[in-house]
Formats: sequence, C-alpha cells, structure tokens
Amino acid sequence: MSEKIYTAGLVVIGDEILSGRTHDKNIAQVASWLQVQGIRLDEVRVVADVQERIVEAVNALRERNDYLFTTGGIGPTHDDITVDAIAAALGVSVVIHPEARAILERYYADKGGINEGRLRMARVPEGAELIPNKKSGAPGIQIGNIYLMAGVPHITAGMLDALTGTLEGGAPLLSETIGGWIPESEVSDLLRETEQAHENCQIGSYPFFRDGKVGSNFVIRSTDADDLQSCVDTLCDGLGTSGFDFTPGGI
Amino acid sequence: MSEKIYTAGLVVIGDEILSGRTHDKNIAQVASWLQVQGIRLDEVRVVADVQERIVEAVNALRERNDYLFTTGGIGPTHDDITVDAIAAALGVSVVIHPEARAILERYYADKGGINEGRLRMARVPEGAELIPNKKSGAPGIQIGNIYLMAGVPHITAGMLDALTGTLEGGAPLLSETIGGWIPESEVSDLLRETEQAHENCQIGSYPFFRDGKVGSNFVIRSTDADDLQSCVDTLCDGLGTSGFDFTPGGI
Repeated sequence: MSEKIYTAGLVVIGDEILSGRTHDKNIAQVASWLQVQGIRLDEVRVVADVQERIVEAVNALRERNDYLFTTGGIGPTHDDITVDAIAAALGVSVVIHPEARAILERYYADKGGINEGRLRMARVPEGAELIPNKKSGAPGIQIGNIYLMAGVPHITAGMLDALTGTLEGGAPLLSETIGGWIPESEVSDLLRETEQAHENCQIGSYPFFRDGKVGSNFVIRSTDADDLQSCVDTLCDGLGTSGFDFTPGGI
Repeated sequence: MSEKIYTAGLVVIGDEILSGRTHDKNIAQVASWLQVQGIRLDEVRVVADVQERIVEAVNALRERNDYLFTTGGIGPTHDDITVDAIAAALGVSVVIHPEARAILERYYADKGGINEGRLRMARVPEGAELIPNKKSGAPGIQIGNIYLMAGVPHITAGMLDALTGTLEGGAPLLSETIGGWIPESEVSDLLRETEQAHENCQIGSYPFFRDGKVGSNFVIRSTDADDLQSCVDTLCDGLGTSGFDFTPGGI
C-alpha cells in the first residue's frame, strides 16, 4: 500500500464568503470532483480580496500539494485580483493571452464588444494555459500546478468538467455509509476498535439531530475494496450485537 | 477613522467537509454572527482530522486575530481530536472539567448514564471555561482567545447564541446592496471609480446567471452610515446615467 496519494489544496477568494453574504458552494463541488479524480483535498483556505493574503495562501498550499485550485476573483471588476496575486506569488508578469482575447472578442461581438473591463479577463500570469469555459466566455487559467477557476458555481462546474480526466490521480478513495438512530456516544468504543482492527480504513462518525431524535452516519473509507468491505462487516456485526438497527447507505 | 478593527479566524475541522460528503454550513453562520458582533472574519481554514494540521492552522490564525473559532471534532468518538490539538497548540495538558462532567452526568442520567465516550466530551485544555450548549449537553470550550464549538450546525448556533454580546467588537460593518440585470463587465469602470471616490467604502461585485440571463449584485460596505449612503448615491446615479435599471436591496 505504498501507492502515491495525490493531494490538492483549494483557496477560495472572496470577501462575500467571509462576510456571510454568500454561502460557498465551491468547496463541496471541488471536493466531490477531486474524489472522483483520485485526488485528496488536503486543505481549504478562504481569504479576502487582498493580494498579500492570496499570495500567502497560494504559496503555502501549492508547495505542499500536487495541485492547487483557486475559485473567485477572475472576473472583469476592480475587486478581481486573483491573476495579479498568482503572478506575484510566482514572480512572473501579467500578460494578455492572445487566445483568451480572441475568445472574449467573439463572445462579446453581439453584446457590445470588448471594453477595458472585459479585456481584464484575458490577463494571465505569463506562461499560463487556458481552461475552457463554455458558459460565459472568460476562460479559467492553468499555470504550473495551479488552476484558477471562476467563483460563480455553475461556471466553476463547467471548468471542472473541462479538466475531468486530465489530472494524474491515484486510486480513488472508496466509501460506504452505515446510518441509524444511534447516538454516537453509545458506540464510540466500537468505532475506535473497529478502525484499529482495519488499518487501511478510516471511520468517520457524523452525528445529526433530526425530527427531535439523535442519529449518526458512519462513513468507512479505504482505497481497497476488500479492506473496506471487511471493515463494514465488522462494524455492522458490532452494531447488531449492541442491539442497534442500522441502514446501509446511511439515513 | 483610526478605530480598532476586531478580527477573527475560523478553523473548520473535519474530513467530511474535505471529502465533499458534508456541505459546510458553519462558515456562513459564523461569518454572519461575527458581522453583528462588529468582528471581521479574516480567514477560514478547513483542515483534516489530523492533530498537526489542526495545530498549524490554530497557531497561525490565533496569533494574527483577536479571536479564533473552531467548529467540529469535540464529540465523543475517536475522530474527535480538537481538544487534544488545541492543548498541544497551547502547550497545556488535557483535563476533565468538573462542571462539564456534572453537566454530562445530568444530561445522560435518563439516557443510559455516562460512559467512556461521553466522558471524552468533558475533556478540556487546562485552564478552559465552558460555553453553554442547551441543545445536547456537551458544552463548547473557551481558552484564551480560542472558542471551540460543535460541528453540527444547529448546536453551533446555540453556542454562538450563548456568546452573543460577550465579545468586544468594533463598529459593525454596514452594507447596502444594489442589484440588476446588469453584466458586471459593462460597469467595471464605474465600480472602480466610485470606490476610489469614497475612501471609507468597499464595493463588491457579485455576478450571477439566472433564468438564462446575467445580472449582478453590488454590495457597498462601510463602517460609517453617511459615507455608505454617499457611495450608494454615486453608484445609483452612475447606473442610471448608463441606462441601467437597478433595484435597491439587490435581486
């Protein structure tokens, strides 16, 4: 089991998340997509629209991970400073990407044409490639192991779609969920002992409170299908022995 | 305007967020609550259930902010390691808090009584105080400028409620929103120039795609009500002059 584990960091850029005005949807979206690519999301940082803070987060996470994704701050307005921040982090210039300019000119041909704000979206750190965006013209940007994506979730989704299958990953992390109206505090020994007995597996316990009752979902994860099944069986046996009803797939 | 700006960091602890399984609700909840307290959320980090990663994030954010909040990892199971990580970050021991133990004994008296897992929820870094939790017995924990809260959003909400009005903050950041079916790329000059002309104000531009049309909400923020109104007026005049319809409050 010395297979390489591929990891990614994510930097979410935007005052609107930190102010509570906008509920972030990109963390879950990027996390789920990475799982399918066999890449583990290692850390997320949400930072303000301030260049030095973006630079700090980007440099910390790009060095310790195989991939770094950013969302937000690549639009046409004055508060869109992600390209400048990434260029500063890498010590390269900002240039107009000719292909991005051509894409924007075509996209805006019947929408009033290109202007200074729209041309901002053709700016890239020198040496960057484009990530296609079928939804709104302005492309995402890839440079080195960094992927700059939009902040608007459905545009981010389109860019992730364009990247699907292009990033090297490892064995996907498999998971099974077992749920029930089980207070996690009554089975904490069972969970710990089961995890310890299955070294290639992790068990997460996710309690909830619903319809006036407490319950839990237990998520068992492993990159090995046999190990995963063995751990699930042990946990189900233990829950049954303790007198708990449970539902495969979770509740 | 040399008034002190109070800031907070937030560390969201949990593999379930990084795997995409659970959509985080605590970032927006904590962010909105902090706004009302006159405290600015400066940065969020989402980290895995790994002690050294929690310690790193906590130490980085507690030193540069007035307050640090954590959510997640204070339950009864083996993957709940936040208390140990905070104690390690601070270089103190983990002890059983007698009042927390008494609370848990009362709470579980008619639910099977205390056990080893449940007693884990009475463990605190030495020197900590408790944050009341009316919903599920197990309290939150405060030590120095660090506030450890639950991961389950409605329990977090109860702990925030218990803390309301107890943290020193500054003047709350006021905001007004102006929205319309306006492509932000057509008003990027206006937004930049309006912000530059009102130095105590920030303007955020939040584009969206809805019902097949593009639009934007522009959020103007300031700690000064008069400056805010003046900036809103300038922006509305500019949008009107440019021939755009807009809606106070946003769309």
